Amino acid sequence: MEVYLDNAATTVVNKNVIELMTEIMSKDYGNPSSLHHKGIDAERYVKDAAETISKTLKVKPKEILFTSGGTESNNTAIIGACNAKKRRGRHIVTTAIEHASVQSVMKYLASEGFEITYVNCDSNGVVSKEAVKEALREDTVLVSVMYVNNEIGSMMDIAGISSVIKECNNDIIFHVDAIQAYGKIKIYPKKLGIDLMSASGHKFHGPKGTGFLYINEKVKITPLIYGGGQQGGMRSGTENVPGIAGLALAAFDSYESIDSVSEKLYSLKDYFIDKVTSIDGVYVNSKKGKDSAMHIISVSCPGFRSEVLLHALEDKGVYVSSGSACSSNKQNVSATLKAMGLAADRLESTVRFSMCDKTTKEELDFAYEALKDVIAKFRVIKQR
Amino acid sequence: MEVYLDNAATTVVNKNVIELMTEIMSKDYGNPSSLHHKGIDAERYVKDAAETISKTLKVKPKEILFTSGGTESNNTAIIGACNAKKRRGRHIVTTAIEHASVQSVMKYLASEGFEITYVNCDSNGVVSKEAVKEALREDTVLVSVMYVNNEIGSMMDIAGISSVIKECNNDIIFHVDAIQAYGKIKIYPKKLGIDLMSASGHKFHGPKGTGFLYINEKVKITPLIYGGGQQGGMRSGTENVPGIAGLALAAFDSYESIDSVSEKLYSLKDYFIDKVTSIDGVYVNSKKGKDSAMHIISVSCPGFRSEVLLHALEDKGVYVSSGSACSSNKQNVSATLKAMGLAADRLESTVRFSMCDKTTKEELDFAYEALKDVIAKFRVIKQR
Repeated sequence: MEVYLDNAATTVVNKNVIELMTEIMSKDYGNPSSLHHKGIDAERYVKDAAETISKTLKVKPKEILFTSGGTESNNTAIIGACNAKKRRGRHIVTTAIEHASVQSVMKYLASEGFEITYVNCDSNGVVSKEAVKEALREDTVLVSVMYVNNEIGSMMDIAGISSVIKECNNDIIFHVDAIQAYGKIKIYPKKLGIDLMSASGHKFHGPKGTGFLYINEKVKITPLIYGGGQQGGMRSGTENVPGIAGLALAAFDSYESIDSVSEKLYSLKDYFIDKVTSIDGVYVNSKKGKDSAMHIISVSCPGFRSEVLLHALEDKGVYVSSGSACSSNKQNVSATLKAMGLAADRLESTVRFSMCDKTTKEELDFAYEALKDVIAKFRVIKQR
Repeated sequence: MEVYLDNAATTVVNKNVIELMTEIMSKDYGNPSSLHHKGIDAERYVKDAAETISKTLKVKPKEILFTSGGTESNNTAIIGACNAKKRRGRHIVTTAIEHASVQSVMKYLASEGFEITYVNCDSNGVVSKEAVKEALREDTVLVSVMYVNNEIGSMMDIAGISSVIKECNNDIIFHVDAIQAYGKIKIYPKKLGIDLMSASGHKFHGPKGTGFLYINEKVKITPLIYGGGQQGGMRSGTENVPGIAGLALAAFDSYESIDSVSEKLYSLKDYFIDKVTSIDGVYVNSKKGKDSAMHIISVSCPGFRSEVLLHALEDKGVYVSSGSACSSNKQNVSATLKAMGLAADRLESTVRFSMCDKTTKEELDFAYEALKDVIAKFRVIKQR
């Protein structure tokens, strides 16, 4: 049996998405900027995709900017907002538990003269609105907070954080990295007071190399990529038509079943956490229940290194991640778990199980048995 | 009959490329940064792609940076080089006939305090090395020149331009936009003295949303996109594995038949130019022979507006472009044709026929008949 539980790293592309992309690449391959009907047909896919995605967020199609992925979305949002606002101030507030695609942008902006305040999280990996409020200053131009943490699944109070920001100064731009949330949780940016929001296609069965950035029409940011003026000049370059259409179809399908999948995964999460917790010496870093995301379960097994656990589970056909998969193979200690105050032996022994809508109870039972066996076997070896 | 002669705008994706992408999206869908074998399998595709492309250029695999397309490649090259060199100087040399993805970046850099010198072309759309030499200054940090002009197919003397640059100052970075050249012309950057070179996948039957930038290992540029440190930190974000693999396969296939296709297209180009020139009142802006590219034929029909011609040809099943398709539907007057000194009536009446390896003599005969008919019909209407 093969059990893929690394869906927070990436997901399989849906079959209908591949079929649509194949159709476009072989038949409707025009350049959306061409004036003949092959161009117009291609442009139609892009327009329809913007409409599909805008409906999931209850925003306008023109507020959707297609990018090459979550990382580009985060870069465009943060660098674009700071460039647009730098005359007003050069202070940014973010959190200690952001994904590398936010953290690294902050480091870059710090080198460009911006001052960054990193707000800490509590022991559950949650950043409070009070902590964000305290960090705000007169010269704060941007706040960037993730919706769902990619390592443990903790969820931030986005509405609460937005309201403390807007109470302080309505001119501060609020960016939300929703890469682990979009397609799983219903998010309405206007209602939540989000100005900019990043999403990535390959996290919800869309193609790699696709993503989008929601940009509130009232918010002005500068582009990251210049050229032929595509997408209203905000992201030049021939649109990745098959990718964009595939992204939108995957989004549509996610939303068609978003409530039932959410129920199912919350129930599976609690089921798995209960089982895993019952293994002696195994700790679960993620919380049960609906205050955290439904698909991410972080587990520590003190005494056994993450990578060793990962490969032992792999040998049994269970694919998981050691911390976050998105940081290019580097053996970094997890910033999130460290910020949560986890002891070193738990930090170093963490693996992440992450589910998708296709995950079954049988797969989790299999993963549980595999983990139990691995731990038992390692214990025997250690005691020799 | 349908005759697609807008291949300089975009090309159909090869069938084997689609099959490979389908395989990867459905089976080998891992994240290259994941440590288990699904990640390692995905990483292998990226490594193999870099090797395939590096072989076509006779460079090292680590000198290939995958991007989301030609526009991102040009942005990364130009902005990255200027940022890396800005302490040494803030002067850039480019040409008056660059693609929008270079032109717009220059405008952005001008707003950031860089000074840009635009070198003009001659009446054939060729920028001479002497003209480039004259523009060089002590504080010049970058020269950016396209290989093949996208509107008329004129080719620049890249080796000659490189030598005048390096004679002046070996520290000046030389970027070549090879988006209309790569896959059609054998280019060896080391031999030609190119430091940075941009290419786009969808121009040679690869997928949209893919491209690469050759970066000479001795040249240091700053990244455009920050994050998890993928691709040696030079372009963060989960790699678009199916896109990258598809790009490399399309490149491989282009190179397999590059000599025979080149011969064929040069012969077709001259054949078509001769036929079209024979139509009364029709002028060909592109040159016959091997001093210009084999696939682009720019034609002016004074008295008839480009867009009207384009749609009349479309009605007959022939798809062409009015000027460059890459500038997002804007009704700009062509910078290239203007720089060549074309009279207004020719400027406004230009259509571009662009071929690919699949183009046949029969298709060109069909396109010629269509153009002849359209012109004749329009003349009759005008004379009423």
